[in-house]
Amino acid sequence: MSFQTAPVSLRELQAPIHDQLDRVSQELHRIVRSDFPLITEVNAHLFQMRGKMFRPTLLLLADQATGCRDTRTATLAAVVELIHLATLVHDDSVDHSVLRRGMPTINSLFSHQISVIMGDYLYSRAVTELVALDDLDPLRVLGRVTNEMTVGEMRQLLSHEPLDFSEPEYDLLIRAKTASLLSGACEVGALRAVPEERAALRRFGDYLGMAFQIVDDLLDYTEPEEVTGKPRGADLREHKVTLPLISALPRLSESERRMVNRLMATPEPNDNMIGEVIQAVSAAGGLDYARERAHGLAAHAELALDALPSNPATEALRASIAYVLERRS
Amino acid sequence: MSFQTAPVSLRELQAPIHDQLDRVSQELHRIVRSDFPLITEVNAHLFQMRGKMFRPTLLLLADQATGCRDTRTATLAAVVELIHLATLVHDDSVDHSVLRRGMPTINSLFSHQISVIMGDYLYSRAVTELVALDDLDPLRVLGRVTNEMTVGEMRQLLSHEPLDFSEPEYDLLIRAKTASLLSGACEVGALRAVPEERAALRRFGDYLGMAFQIVDDLLDYTEPEEVTGKPRGADLREHKVTLPLISALPRLSESERRMVNRLMATPEPNDNMIGEVIQAVSAAGGLDYARERAHGLAAHAELALDALPSNPATEALRASIAYVLERRS
Repeated sequence: MSFQTAPVSLRELQAPIHDQLDRVSQELHRIVRSDFPLITEVNAHLFQMRGKMFRPTLLLLADQATGCRDTRTATLAAVVELIHLATLVHDDSVDHSVLRRGMPTINSLFSHQISVIMGDYLYSRAVTELVALDDLDPLRVLGRVTNEMTVGEMRQLLSHEPLDFSEPEYDLLIRAKTASLLSGACEVGALRAVPEERAALRRFGDYLGMAFQIVDDLLDYTEPEEVTGKPRGADLREHKVTLPLISALPRLSESERRMVNRLMATPEPNDNMIGEVIQAVSAAGGLDYARERAHGLAAHAELALDALPSNPATEALRASIAYVLERRS
Repeated sequence: MSFQTAPVSLRELQAPIHDQLDRVSQELHRIVRSDFPLITEVNAHLFQMRGKMFRPTLLLLADQATGCRDTRTATLAAVVELIHLATLVHDDSVDHSVLRRGMPTINSLFSHQISVIMGDYLYSRAVTELVALDDLDPLRVLGRVTNEMTVGEMRQLLSHEPLDFSEPEYDLLIRAKTASLLSGACEVGALRAVPEERAALRRFGDYLGMAFQIVDDLLDYTEPEEVTGKPRGADLREHKVTLPLISALPRLSESERRMVNRLMATPEPNDNMIGEVIQAVSAAGGLDYARERAHGLAAHAELALDALPSNPATEALRASIAYVLERRS
């Protein structure tokens, strides 16, 4: 499969839509601009920690791949990134996370209170911006997606019991939490395309998003803080059960399973306990299994692209699969 | 003025729309229904602590007063109540409140995490429900209102400095935090009315909402926990500066002012400190001033009703002014 070849950089993916991404940044700044000093201050920090604009990238590529060139794409892409930022701000607050992309989170730098309110602010601004476009279609997609994401967050709260949290439940979690917005970004990039292409892009984003989250959960097991911007094993430290552990569990020895239960019962597990569990999960093939599943989902994502015309943007979407699989942060 | 006569009960206000309120409750249950057990559990608790449905009442009365009888009113009223519930859940979490209407808050009964996610869930459900009505008009009003409320919450965070928090800033705070949704409820009840009536109802809700919040802030100074369901002086305990203190401050003695500063500098002020400040604010006329302002705003609210036809629903809206001024909880 093409996505198993040489590493792809985000810059390469973004080549066909490079100029448009600047417009997205401008739109993002315009939308959150506020006379209120505290909001301005939090915004400035949010923009500093701004990510790779992966969701806007998908939206712009979807628009270009279907050849529709919606005049609203920059605004729609900015809104999708805004919704993403709003969920990050609330997630960090819910998780009491201290670092995000190597930078202090809003809750650690300002306060928990400001995080809750700021997430609400960003999300409600996204809604008013969509309303101003005077078209219910993007609101229909992104309203549904946002609601799914909150259900995903609820599922996350239940993922702390390794013996009770199954792979089907994990799948529901990552679809709701992550795939929904990637899928929504792709679909909103194709609102004016023919229904088949719109459905294909929605499906593409769904598979890609599930693969994306599995890789994210793998990176937590494999990559050091210097690469990901957050400590290795952070999920285990927060007692979050993800695919590597779920799949390894039946193959762990009695004593290894006790080790896992001990970690889950320890409020602040130390690096040693975490390292031991990572080692056991890896030896039992948990990382390999998760990698395989990510590749399987990626193959479905690639298949969905068959419905699109062949052009540089479609090729960039195909390359985004390799990017998702091979990224290290 | 008519609102200075005998006390008005909520039941009286609700007489013209009593049957419709049952429909609103049914709609509310339908909208938040979920397969997800944790959401069902939180919902059950939210419904137990459900309030007086004052915002749905205003919406239904506005609809009836303008004679438009929108077929969507029950759904719209349920959505307005849902937005109200979402903000209460987040507010309680932001304030770390333990009690609301004499019942444990979601954050105290479940967790802070669940409060943040549940607020997001309720709000995003409100949006998807409005989208399903296939009309941008209610979304336009309620999207704007929700964004205003988040700015109000931000302003609230700045209200902890008695010497820096002025009456104009207090006015901006209560308009954004409280009046916006009451005004939005009235306006959404008149979406199909003539523009003059719609504008009048929006204005009515704005004035009524400001009076409502001033009375709320007064009750915190005057009423015991048995009546309001939360401890007397809770705002002062949380270092929230409201109109009674703002207006009394210039008339306090040097030593009384020191007392206020001491309370504001004490992380957990005791009942004694709070009682002393309440006494000083009352003696300096702070409560009288706040009451006068509430009455002044109420007079403007009543004036706005002149634009409406004379009928029982308009009379109930007029009576709601007296209800707001005279309520004790």
